[in-house]
Amino acid sequence: MKELTMAIVGYGGMGSYHAHALIPDAAHIHLKGAFDIDPARQQAIADDGFVSYPSYGALLADPEIDLVLVATPNDRHKPLAIQALNAGKHVISEKPAMMSPAELEEVLAVAKDAHREFFTHQNRRWDPDFRVITEIVESHSIGDVFRIESRVHGANGIPGDWRHYAKYGGGMIRDWGVHLLDQLLFLLDGPISRVTAETSTILGNDCDDGFTVRLDFASGIRCVVEVGTTNFISLPRWYVKGTKGTAEIIDWDLAGEQVIATGVDTTAPAPIRAGVGLTKTMAPPAENAVRHAALPAGTPLAESFYDNVHDVITAGAARIVKNEEVLRLLRLIDAIFQATETGQSVGFE
Amino acid sequence: MKELTMAIVGYGGMGSYHAHALIPDAAHIHLKGAFDIDPARQQAIADDGFVSYPSYGALLADPEIDLVLVATPNDRHKPLAIQALNAGKHVISEKPAMMSPAELEEVLAVAKDAHREFFTHQNRRWDPDFRVITEIVESHSIGDVFRIESRVHGANGIPGDWRHYAKYGGGMIRDWGVHLLDQLLFLLDGPISRVTAETSTILGNDCDDGFTVRLDFASGIRCVVEVGTTNFISLPRWYVKGTKGTAEIIDWDLAGEQVIATGVDTTAPAPIRAGVGLTKTMAPPAENAVRHAALPAGTPLAESFYDNVHDVITAGAARIVKNEEVLRLLRLIDAIFQATETGQSVGFE
Repeated sequence: MKELTMAIVGYGGMGSYHAHALIPDAAHIHLKGAFDIDPARQQAIADDGFVSYPSYGALLADPEIDLVLVATPNDRHKPLAIQALNAGKHVISEKPAMMSPAELEEVLAVAKDAHREFFTHQNRRWDPDFRVITEIVESHSIGDVFRIESRVHGANGIPGDWRHYAKYGGGMIRDWGVHLLDQLLFLLDGPISRVTAETSTILGNDCDDGFTVRLDFASGIRCVVEVGTTNFISLPRWYVKGTKGTAEIIDWDLAGEQVIATGVDTTAPAPIRAGVGLTKTMAPPAENAVRHAALPAGTPLAESFYDNVHDVITAGAARIVKNEEVLRLLRLIDAIFQATETGQSVGFE
Repeated sequence: MKELTMAIVGYGGMGSYHAHALIPDAAHIHLKGAFDIDPARQQAIADDGFVSYPSYGALLADPEIDLVLVATPNDRHKPLAIQALNAGKHVISEKPAMMSPAELEEVLAVAKDAHREFFTHQNRRWDPDFRVITEIVESHSIGDVFRIESRVHGANGIPGDWRHYAKYGGGMIRDWGVHLLDQLLFLLDGPISRVTAETSTILGNDCDDGFTVRLDFASGIRCVVEVGTTNFISLPRWYVKGTKGTAEIIDWDLAGEQVIATGVDTTAPAPIRAGVGLTKTMAPPAENAVRHAALPAGTPLAESFYDNVHDVITAGAARIVKNEEVLRLLRLIDAIFQATETGQSVGFE
């Protein structure tokens, strides 16, 4: 099996996370070194036992390097990726791949000319919670799924760095949004007919500190994607409705359940008092009308992100993260920006 | 204190609930009798110890009756209210007051000419959960509230009667929607600049079986109002965000809490692993950065709905439910229907 040697540009939170947590798990990829413009991080690279290149040029000039990870602020992905491709390296970009679909098209053209592979680290396709939701959709355990709500809530605001600024590609649409939207595009078939969106700017940054997006798929499935950084209480990570039940995943620890209609008792339940009023509609279903089921284990993907990158480069394997999918994702994000600017929903596909 | 004598037209679930649960608590209102077109319900009226009038005409011809409650399907509110007003009775209508703002304007004109009072039973202004939210907003316990999400979720579908049909005024917008929207209009000041809405028709009725509405107030406060009848798991009844914290009420039993920033520790928390990735943004705040507080008791209203009705009629007291508020509510519902038909958000006020 051919081994690949790798380097990282941008040794911040994400770059060093790849170095410590992700690349060591890759079977046939070895991290040699990294470059960062910050002297303290250059020192950290050396302290971590890697080659600390004195410049990006020096990194790209190293003939041992097959593959470069770009883990810088978002506005730097394009020039750094193009430089690496032109230097004959394969490239992985942190998400969002680029600032716009046009940027990605430009990079893909360069990759094609250079006969090199370009990848985007859409790693949350591998998240255990998302794999559980995938199995629920594919197994029809709650019937045909017609609504998926995907939320990530925090209370820390936007992290205190370049992510505060639109010009560097900051904001939550380009941060968590990219992940959550990618998951749904990957999971569900067919075109998205309509996009509705609202953003929060309560923290006073020039980019969004949270958003709610509604995606109407042509199939009839409707999705809500929400990210908040001013939420001191979190709503469930996933809330999924099917024709025969509802599923919920509360948090990253995968607490949650499926509640499924048994079909046994279809008589209307007795009205209950709710507040000062009476409600038949909102009374709990009869006890034997529903059953509670554990969440499934989750449909696994064929291999890890890095193993797939290796196999694509060395053996022409099928990609798990396809560039046309990432291009569609960036087009969707453009549609979301358009919807938030106009206050109107926009047609998409 | 002048006593009022009352009758009910429509002795279904709501009419009989007024008879058994609400009117007995009114200090100076006495229920004499009722009329229903259904013979079985006519018998129930008598069995319950009330006068079972043989016709609506006979009810209105009874000179002892001061006040009539209309608790019929929604499309019948207008003709029955007008008949009663013209017979010299004061009228309470179940919600929604009327099928349209135009209908309500017509009824209010009749009431004015007849020198009689018309009321709408917007009783959920008295709901304990709503009074708690009112206190949270008014006390600024979580800072300035900028987002309110109000949800009611059930799994029973639309109740199996006239509420299935648009022509009778069925659907959830005209059912729970009227209540939840009324609460927010009553709570929050100032105009609503924009209305965005989506409906669910997954059950195949010709009216909505659930909906999500977004109200953008000119003040900057944004509200989400959601009703579902195909939700086997319920999201929290209330989810409220303020500049200093978040509050949540889970269900009718008022379980829930406020989580409030202490301002003590503003350092960013350490990144956590979430799924296969790393997140600083979504890491829980440091332990001393927030405190958990019980929900407040709730701001009480001056008097009960029926006591207020009595005092308005007999002593010209100020109304708690004002007709111009109900008219605005019906106009908002028209805007919601418009938004759902066009798929676009609409300007409102």
